[in-house]
Amino acid sequence: MFRPIGYVRSPFSEKFGAPRQPGLVQAAKGHIDLIAPYDRPEAIRGLEGFSHIWILFVFHRALGEGWRPTVRPPRLGGKRRLGVFATRAPFRPNPIGMSAVALTGVECNPGAFRILISGLDLVDGTPILDIKPYLPATDALPKARGGFTEEVTKAPLEVGFGAEAERYLGTLAIDAAAELRELITAVLEGDPRPAYLTRGARRSEFGARLAGHNVRWTINGPNIRVTAIEGRAEAT
Amino acid sequence: MFRPIGYVRSPFSEKFGAPRQPGLVQAAKGHIDLIAPYDRPEAIRGLEGFSHIWILFVFHRALGEGWRPTVRPPRLGGKRRLGVFATRAPFRPNPIGMSAVALTGVECNPGAFRILISGLDLVDGTPILDIKPYLPATDALPKARGGFTEEVTKAPLEVGFGAEAERYLGTLAIDAAAELRELITAVLEGDPRPAYLTRGARRSEFGARLAGHNVRWTINGPNIRVTAIEGRAEAT
Repeated sequence: MFRPIGYVRSPFSEKFGAPRQPGLVQAAKGHIDLIAPYDRPEAIRGLEGFSHIWILFVFHRALGEGWRPTVRPPRLGGKRRLGVFATRAPFRPNPIGMSAVALTGVECNPGAFRILISGLDLVDGTPILDIKPYLPATDALPKARGGFTEEVTKAPLEVGFGAEAERYLGTLAIDAAAELRELITAVLEGDPRPAYLTRGARRSEFGARLAGHNVRWTINGPNIRVTAIEGRAEAT
Repeated sequence: MFRPIGYVRSPFSEKFGAPRQPGLVQAAKGHIDLIAPYDRPEAIRGLEGFSHIWILFVFHRALGEGWRPTVRPPRLGGKRRLGVFATRAPFRPNPIGMSAVALTGVECNPGAFRILISGLDLVDGTPILDIKPYLPATDALPKARGGFTEEVTKAPLEVGFGAEAERYLGTLAIDAAAELRELITAVLEGDPRPAYLTRGARRSEFGARLAGHNVRWTINGPNIRVTAIEGRAEAT
């Protein structure tokens, strides 16, 4: 009954490094590629009047894993089990996720029908089931009580760039370097480590692929140092 | 791949009379009946800390009708065609809807596992695919631009009760009468008529089933008069 209307193109090629919630990293830009027969300009007529959209997507990496009645939310440090329906975890009976993201533009070219977005938290290639306008009148409930998500507000980590990383940034065009620096900073200051790695500090060196670059960093208390950035893959 | 985790029980037995958006009618109370194997207390552990939840549901009355690239939103008086992805209309490629509703309680009794909600806009029997906590930190974007939905804010209609309707309310327990009056008033002041019936005022008498009562009313300009309320069906 349900099949994708398109796919997300995002800077995050893996779960590790992708923000845990939408909107946290506005520098995370990407787009939705609508596929036939949904790639019709009239199907999005009027969408340009909205600043934000909802994306309903499939937790495709959790498919086949089945649902779990309880999960350990990363923001509680993996220390407490909560019901899956009290969280946004992927291991749901129907593995559908939803994210509110900023709508930054639309490109309707033959063979490339793209909805440009920012504030993404989705992994590259995520299948999209639906796009809906964000309606502030009914969707924005700023006074809602946020349950366990209100208990913890972690201070952002301090992100610095080492000499080798700076050298790499220096080889890029100025705009591209600034954009990459902003993306890396925003992603790393949120501490992408899964909870089991933050307990006891078993490891201090990490790496992830961001926007096609291999990024490596070390963590020392509240300080992150980007030690190296390497080779961009072909443009996607 | 997708199958219901439960069903909505709501005062609205038909589309006509159901609010067009969640939250408009807080008096619209109902619940979600979770079905096996999802009716497990641990699956909602922690949910009680949230004031609101998202319901993902199937537009089951639109199933089989297929999707339409464009639709005429009722709030624009049915006068303009917009892309289906720029609206919340049911005729979508994947007919999944989402509503933010207030969470008012949970009842875990053997054979009856209920999540109590208010501010409902769903028809009785709507299949539920998922329940997620409403996270104000990422879901509440009060400054978002609301596109065409910002163009029109219709003043609520004035709702009065005629002698026959009052007589019926007088036969009910005081609390039940007050609750029913509140529900009828909230539903009717939003003018449930579809757009094609508000143009040219072809008809002035209407009826709908609300919370098991047959309610009839007349419309004259901005005034609604509830002319009669009849027979409650068996409790559901």
